[in-house]
Order: sequence, then structure tokens, then C-alpha cells
Amino acid sequence: MPKLFKKIKEIRSFLKELKCNGSNLSVGFVPTMGYLHKGHMELIKLSKLQNEITVVSIYVNPLQFGAGEDYERYPRDLERDLAMCEEAGVDVVFAPEDQEMYPELPKVKIDIPGLTDRLEGAYRPGHFNGVAIVVLKLLHIVQPDRAYFGEKDYQQLKVVERLVKDLSLPVEIVPVPTVREEDGLACSSRNVYLSPEERQSASAIYKSFLLAQKLFQSGNTDANLLKEAIKDFLLKHPHVRKIDYVEITDEELNPVEEVKEGDRILVALYVGNTRLIDNWRLSHEKL
Amino acid sequence: MPKLFKKIKEIRSFLKELKCNGSNLSVGFVPTMGYLHKGHMELIKLSKLQNEITVVSIYVNPLQFGAGEDYERYPRDLERDLAMCEEAGVDVVFAPEDQEMYPELPKVKIDIPGLTDRLEGAYRPGHFNGVAIVVLKLLHIVQPDRAYFGEKDYQQLKVVERLVKDLSLPVEIVPVPTVREEDGLACSSRNVYLSPEERQSASAIYKSFLLAQKLFQSGNTDANLLKEAIKDFLLKHPHVRKIDYVEITDEELNPVEEVKEGDRILVALYVGNTRLIDNWRLSHEKL
Repeated sequence: MPKLFKKIKEIRSFLKELKCNGSNLSVGFVPTMGYLHKGHMELIKLSKLQNEITVVSIYVNPLQFGAGEDYERYPRDLERDLAMCEEAGVDVVFAPEDQEMYPELPKVKIDIPGLTDRLEGAYRPGHFNGVAIVVLKLLHIVQPDRAYFGEKDYQQLKVVERLVKDLSLPVEIVPVPTVREEDGLACSSRNVYLSPEERQSASAIYKSFLLAQKLFQSGNTDANLLKEAIKDFLLKHPHVRKIDYVEITDEELNPVEEVKEGDRILVALYVGNTRLIDNWRLSHEKL
Repeated sequence: MPKLFKKIKEIRSFLKELKCNGSNLSVGFVPTMGYLHKGHMELIKLSKLQNEITVVSIYVNPLQFGAGEDYERYPRDLERDLAMCEEAGVDVVFAPEDQEMYPELPKVKIDIPGLTDRLEGAYRPGHFNGVAIVVLKLLHIVQPDRAYFGEKDYQQLKVVERLVKDLSLPVEIVPVPTVREEDGLACSSRNVYLSPEERQSASAIYKSFLLAQKLFQSGNTDANLLKEAIKDFLLKHPHVRKIDYVEITDEELNPVEEVKEGDRILVALYVGNTRLIDNWRLSHEKL
């Protein structure tokens, strides 16, 4: 069983002793909101490969949810998560209560103009402020050598990379490619919200990426043309109720008009009442 | 001579080895903009008392100066500072170049609404964003157990305390009372800007605090009455050119109308062309 901590003080002193035990062990950290899936398992696998100690945090961060979002119904199952962590060989789990993380509401506001105000930030105001605060807190608590973030939440990854760079955090951020179900749907804890019919429609996101990739590979480099093709395709599917955005950007999330290898498609949409996000790196490689 | 570092990577690996040397030595950190004076020496003295290793940083942070402020003319003298650090028994000095601290301009913006937008923040827009970024960077580079801040920059101290709390930084912030010259003027690197005549007028700030303290001790608890008395007194002095603010707040910098023990007077004004700030804790103790 991984060692379970709920208190900041206790995990800190445990890790301090462990790290400073003469041998200077390296620590890999996988921050999660729990309800673990295959995507998380990839993060853990890589951390295990690259570090002597792997720490997983499980915490549904209220600060990154907006009013009317799914904070209350977000799936939680600590026992199942702990069993999966054990199976994966995780050494330490940090699963704090709200009172421990936020004894009072933080007053600090963290923005990255041009990054946190776009895409997800535009549709979920305050979301990345909540992400930035919880990630900084967790990095300050665990003080890992490496931290693992899935490319599924690509904008979040970019926000965290920028924070680490701008604030000289002593950690290496390791991005991990999105893990997908057999039909291409990106693994996400929120997929459990989908009815069987919605679940089927949700695979259209992946198919729309393949369509765009094919158009790109046959010489179409007009971002608008690709975006329209994706939208048209998506909206043909039942249960695809509303598209928040379909955007194409460079690696650093700056919008592009002419598409080149390495650019990203980013999509947010509702399937039924469930909001899903996904993204795709355009390349010339054949699938 | 203290060990001098100019590179983040080098001071980090030096301190990591030192700290993790089996014995788990504690590190005290005194961040400064150099041109050290008696106030800094008090911070260093306390750090030496409470820690096995004392690190001083010397860096004039361009990010916390506004357009038209004194960034270019801010006094610098690394050799003198190093000699003073040696005299004081400092172990490590970190004196990075701009290129090392900001290889590119940070994009992150850090605010604490209700705190960074008031007093100094209102008169120096962007100042506390620059302070927050450099302090977080330095804390991430040095990773001290304790960091020492003078009460002279009281609002800065409160900003740093709030950042540490909100972001769970693994450091204890130790406030150190303001050190004053014989005539009561708070020690500051900027005092060298003052002509002899201005220097004399500058002591009016301290005298105005004593006046307010006396009024408070004889039963006057109306903040406005105290503020007006301070302003009237200050403006009687030659070279006191412009008062940015005279404010009375509680310990956490919330404005008060009725003054009580422990409240703070905060003043910013120009003596000649030199902007000075100072503050004072009101108490019933006789001086």
C-alpha cells in the first residue's frame, strides 16, 4: 500500500527525511483530481521510470471550478484510487481535505495575460487562477524533482510550464502524451458522465482530428478551412450540443492562420450536458 | 570572504549539497537590493543567530521599478557590500545579472486585490507584481528555512507573508523591526540621494510619528485627526515637497477610523526629489 498522507506538515517532514537520507533520492510527482484512469497510469509509469520515489496527489480543487460547473458531482473514489496506486507501485499518496489546503480562501490572483484569458480561460473565468494556485501549493508541499502533466489538458500544461519558468521553480515539468480509449476518445474522469449514446458521439472529436490531419497532409494549410471542416463534422453527430471553441494554434498557444507541422488543434464542446476538451498535434507523419 | 554566486544553477547545487550533507543544516535568507546599511545588518544578525547558514542576495530588481523611477540611479557597490557581508559573517552571497534572473520578461502577473493595489501599489503600479515575482524566484532558488524582511517596507512584508500563506511556500517569514539613524530617520539605501538640508528635513517623518503616538496616548483615537496632525507637521518642514499618503491601518493594512494599539501609520512623501516611505506601530508604551 502506498503511504497515505492528509496533512501538509506530515508529508513534508516524511519526504524531507526520505530525500535527505544521504542518498539524495529523486522525487517524481503526479498531481491528480483522483478517479484515476489509464491516462494517470501513464504519468505514474513514467514517474516510476525516471525517479526513485513517486508521489501522487488526489485532490478535487474547488478553486478551479466556476459557479455552475461540476465541482459537486465530480467523481470521487479514494479507495479505488489507492488500490490503483498500489497496483502501479506508487510510494506516497497525498489526499488532503479542503480545510488543509485552504484554511482560508487565498487572496492572491495569478494571471498570464495572453494565455490564461484565452480558450479554456475565456470560457471558464478564474479556472487557471485556481489551477495556478493549487499547482504552486502542491509543488511547494511535495518539492519534487519532476512533475508529470498530461497533454490532454494542453493549456494547463502551458500555464504550468510558464509559471515554472517565470518563477524559477526548482522542478522539471514532464509532458505526457494523451492516452485514448480504443475508439480514440481521450481518457478523462469526466467520461463517466456520458450515457452510452453520448459516449458513442464523443468519439467524433478524435475522428475530427483525423479528418483535419488528412486535410493538412493533402496540402490544406488554411487554419479557417480546417476549423470549419472540424466543426461541420462534429455538429453532424447526435448529442454534440454546443461547441465552445475549435482553435488552431502554435505550440505556445498563439493562434495561427497558416498551419504548419507541430501546430495544435484545441477543441471544447458539450456532448449532452458534459463538457469535454481535447487537442491534437498536427503532423506530416502517417498514422 | 562569503562564497559568491552569480548563476542560479551553481548556488542551487552548492546549497543542495550543503543542506543535504547528512546534518540537514538550516538556511536563513536575506534578500536585498544591495548598498547595504545598518538595517540589512540587523536582518543578517538575526539570520546568523537562528540558522547555520546565512545567504544574502544582492539584486536591483528592474521589474519592481516603474517608468520614471530611480532604477538607473539606484546606488550599487558590490565590493563594499561583499566587505560588509564578510564582516557580518555571511556564508553565501547571490548576486545575479539581469540576464540570469530574466532571460526573458516574465509573463505572469501576481496581484493580491485589496493589498497590492493600495498605498505603495496605488502610487507605484506594477511595483508589487515585480516584488512578488522576484521574491518567489529568490525563494525558489535559495529554498531557505527562514527569510528575513524589514518592517521598514511594511506593505512588502505583508505581500510576502500573504504569498507564503496562499501558496504554501516552505519558508518562515521573519519580520525585523526598522532600524533608525540617531535622529530617527529609517535606514534606507535611498537616503544617499538626500542633500544635507534635505537629510535634516527627512527626520520630520520620525518626529511626526512621535507626535501621533503622543496624541494617541493622550486619548485621541480618531484616525483622521491623527493623520491631519501628521500631515500638518510634515508640511511645515522645508524640502517636504509632496505627500503621497499618510494612512492609518490595522496590522493587516486594512484602513481604520478608530485607532487602537498595534495599528500602523504609513507614510510616503518626497523630500526634495527623493521619495521616502516609513511606518510606525502605535502603542501605549512610553518611549
